[in-house]
Amino acid sequence: MPTPQRDFSQRQPDASNGMHSRSLLDTVSFSQDDILELFSKADELERRQNETGSFGDPSRKRVLALLFFEPSTRTRMSFQIAAERLGYSVVTLESAATSSLSKGESLSDTVLNVLAMRPDGLVVRYGKDDDLACLLPTLEIPIFSAGTGVLAHPTQALLDAYTIERICGVRDTRVLLVGDIRHSRVARSNFDVLGKLGAAVGICGPQEWLPAEPRKNVRVFSNLDEAAAWCDVYMGLRVQHERHAKAADVSAYNREFGLTASRLQILKKDAIIMHPGPINHGVEFSHEVMNDPRYRVLQQVTNGVLIRAALLARAFEDTGV
Amino acid sequence: MPTPQRDFSQRQPDASNGMHSRSLLDTVSFSQDDILELFSKADELERRQNETGSFGDPSRKRVLALLFFEPSTRTRMSFQIAAERLGYSVVTLESAATSSLSKGESLSDTVLNVLAMRPDGLVVRYGKDDDLACLLPTLEIPIFSAGTGVLAHPTQALLDAYTIERICGVRDTRVLLVGDIRHSRVARSNFDVLGKLGAAVGICGPQEWLPAEPRKNVRVFSNLDEAAAWCDVYMGLRVQHERHAKAADVSAYNREFGLTASRLQILKKDAIIMHPGPINHGVEFSHEVMNDPRYRVLQQVTNGVLIRAALLARAFEDTGV
Amino acid sequence: MPTPQRDFSQRQPDASNGMHSRSLLDTVSFSQDDILELFSKADELERRQNETGSFGDPSRKRVLALLFFEPSTRTRMSFQIAAERLGYSVVTLESAATSSLSKGESLSDTVLNVLAMRPDGLVVRYGKDDDLACLLPTLEIPIFSAGTGVLAHPTQALLDAYTIERICGVRDTRVLLVGDIRHSRVARSNFDVLGKLGAAVGICGPQEWLPAEPRKNVRVFSNLDEAAAWCDVYMGLRVQHERHAKAADVSAYNREFGLTASRLQILKKDAIIMHPGPINHGVEFSHEVMNDPRYRVLQQVTNGVLIRAALLARAFEDTGV
Repeated sequence: MPTPQRDFSQRQPDASNGMHSRSLLDTVSFSQDDILELFSKADELERRQNETGSFGDPSRKRVLALLFFEPSTRTRMSFQIAAERLGYSVVTLESAATSSLSKGESLSDTVLNVLAMRPDGLVVRYGKDDDLACLLPTLEIPIFSAGTGVLAHPTQALLDAYTIERICGVRDTRVLLVGDIRHSRVARSNFDVLGKLGAAVGICGPQEWLPAEPRKNVRVFSNLDEAAAWCDVYMGLRVQHERHAKAADVSAYNREFGLTASRLQILKKDAIIMHPGPINHGVEFSHEVMNDPRYRVLQQVTNGVLIRAALLARAFEDTGV
Repeated sequence: MPTPQRDFSQRQPDASNGMHSRSLLDTVSFSQDDILELFSKADELERRQNETGSFGDPSRKRVLALLFFEPSTRTRMSFQIAAERLGYSVVTLESAATSSLSKGESLSDTVLNVLAMRPDGLVVRYGKDDDLACLLPTLEIPIFSAGTGVLAHPTQALLDAYTIERICGVRDTRVLLVGDIRHSRVARSNFDVLGKLGAAVGICGPQEWLPAEPRKNVRVFSNLDEAAAWCDVYMGLRVQHERHAKAADVSAYNREFGLTASRLQILKKDAIIMHPGPINHGVEFSHEVMNDPRYRVLQQVTNGVLIRAALLARAFEDTGV
Repeated sequence: MPTPQRDFSQRQPDASNGMHSRSLLDTVSFSQDDILELFSKADELERRQNETGSFGDPSRKRVLALLFFEPSTRTRMSFQIAAERLGYSVVTLESAATSSLSKGESLSDTVLNVLAMRPDGLVVRYGKDDDLACLLPTLEIPIFSAGTGVLAHPTQALLDAYTIERICGVRDTRVLLVGDIRHSRVARSNFDVLGKLGAAVGICGPQEWLPAEPRKNVRVFSNLDEAAAWCDVYMGLRVQHERHAKAADVSAYNREFGLTASRLQILKKDAIIMHPGPINHGVEFSHEVMNDPRYRVLQQVTNGVLIRAALLARAFEDTGV
């Protein structure tokens, strides 16, 4: 009888840290140096794209599997464009509707199956799923979170910080997060990244959406006007209607915790207005905001492709960035 | 503080015409010469494919974003195959179901976001949307309509004319459009293209589906038998059930305005039978039509890939066609 | 008037066998030699991937259209990864929801249309459809079934046999299929392939799910304990809830026809446990099975990509395998 065939999904991960060292499931595994190195790579990729129209030719064509168990058109397209510009191929599983999940297959089963197809890397977006959390750290190809329940959204926080870094630098900059802090994976990852880069962080939002435990080094504002006057960066967070049973009183929310025309007056002249998107217009931001010169949301999107491509290039080390 | 970063979505369009000169949102911006030059490029691409199996290697790998806010499997696949054969990559957003539109994002927001990801070109299909109409002409990358509400379907009209041109030439050929002229973007674009190329155009259909205003140089037939005997090209238009509240009396429609077995007898021996698809069999066309040697619908589909590839090659000028 | 244009969808197929000789709609058209040659190609592709990270550079970039009229995320991704690793491009139509089928277009119409776009090959998954069965054999590009109603699932049976071949050889090996034999395309194709390669085949399942007619050379077991002790390979078949009107009594099924903890004890020490997936955990297999060292389901998945890539490489003959 021949030697039993290797089962790639069961090989051992790097002894060092329990998962592939080029993975990114949460920014907590990234040091300040890791973050700054990533920013340099993103700079270099942008320079290349502006000069040659591409991010450079890879020495090997990679196949990346994108598994989106929660729909997110933008993040999926951002990762896909990043990968295609690097010359990689992308295979996508999106949403439960057309997937074998509708046949009763579990999330971790699906991930194990896709891994057995031997893609070079995996991008995963999913809600809270303890099975998957147990599974992922044992895997040996690079894995990137595209948003994980309420826990982490590492590429969003990195592109946010990169955007701030390029405009005014993150160190000592006052960044205000407004809205549903407690249930926001974007907020969690931002606390981590902004803290590592030396920003001063403030938060403001409805009492029941503030963190259950006070966070160290995070200033809590009870009055948004005061907070708006304080900050250099105003980051609105999405009101997740789907996460809150009671329909929010939208106009009351906008009045108390939205960036309104009158608060635009309070904001500093050279402040930066950000939002992870998609924006609920008329809720987090009044309609005037989109046309304000301080509005930088589309730059965040542009930077998102650069940051994701830098992450991939860092993991696969084959474009010489 | 460093120089503010460029926001690519807000750069100025070409001064000359208010949008990228290689875009195609409506054939009205195309001259007769533009159309004939496009046909030559399509001829050349077909010659290459037959000889080498591809449309030629691009000097640069492009990333094309396809945004289909109305589902259209065929047109999407046609553009995608055209792009892939040119060596480009394609990133797709299809239908509202899996998109962030379901999170309350507006169409123009989505387009602005995708543009900020810096694809090389955009293909957009959408229903009537005034915001989007305002937005598109200001953009600086090439944009191609894959069907726009009731207003225009430029690539369909171009492939229709190309098909006629290759079989018998368009000039002085009598082209009959049958059905719902008033709500048909295909008809609108065909009037424009066929007019520029010198065809004689006739229409026939239910009174309430004829144009509200008579069109210059378009002959209106009240009797389909008479019209069928007159024409060299018989183009059936799709009955858009979804656009009409009252369920059409299908068999009555077929009797009065369908291409039936008896009307096949009336048609000229070397007439051409066309349809933009998808066909409602038994409505616009009786079942005999598909097997008639004058039926050229699949040639239209083949030519659709060539015309769309020619458009892309013209816009990006990097395959030497 | 110029020469009429060729209609590619109507060209004549190979005179020899009524369809492109490199197609695979059912394994019945494959000889033992064809199967063994395919296994060698799969071996060679795996060797290349392990050494160079790819299956080799094609002399020509192919465009493959995947038409999934029944959803099947895994099989679609497996074909797609196989194709991408060969350097081909993939264009996908998946499920009725976003397709023009929702506009009343028939399956065969859709296939004819996609063919007219001139892809290099076609992968099709569909339920029983007599029109399509009539159509496919007349086509002249290679066509591969990704599962056809209850009739055939050729690539699944080939990857199953390849997995057995690599672990212990197929000849004289006792393979047991358990469950809904009668409605299983996987079982049908396995009977054919395993028979050609000289396996001894047994079946066990509920009386109403056994084949209506007894099959030659297939041993029927009425008692699963006895069958489990007999076999070298235990292949569970999926209980297709969607095919059976009456909700199965799941725990009774598991007790009588499932691979349970106690039956794991009965199985030979070096037996192989297989399943085409997706598994209904707690039905065909109890939860202990996944962690049993004899469980080889993920190896089947890995081999699936190799077998599908080997089929494509065999059809297009441009990677030198």
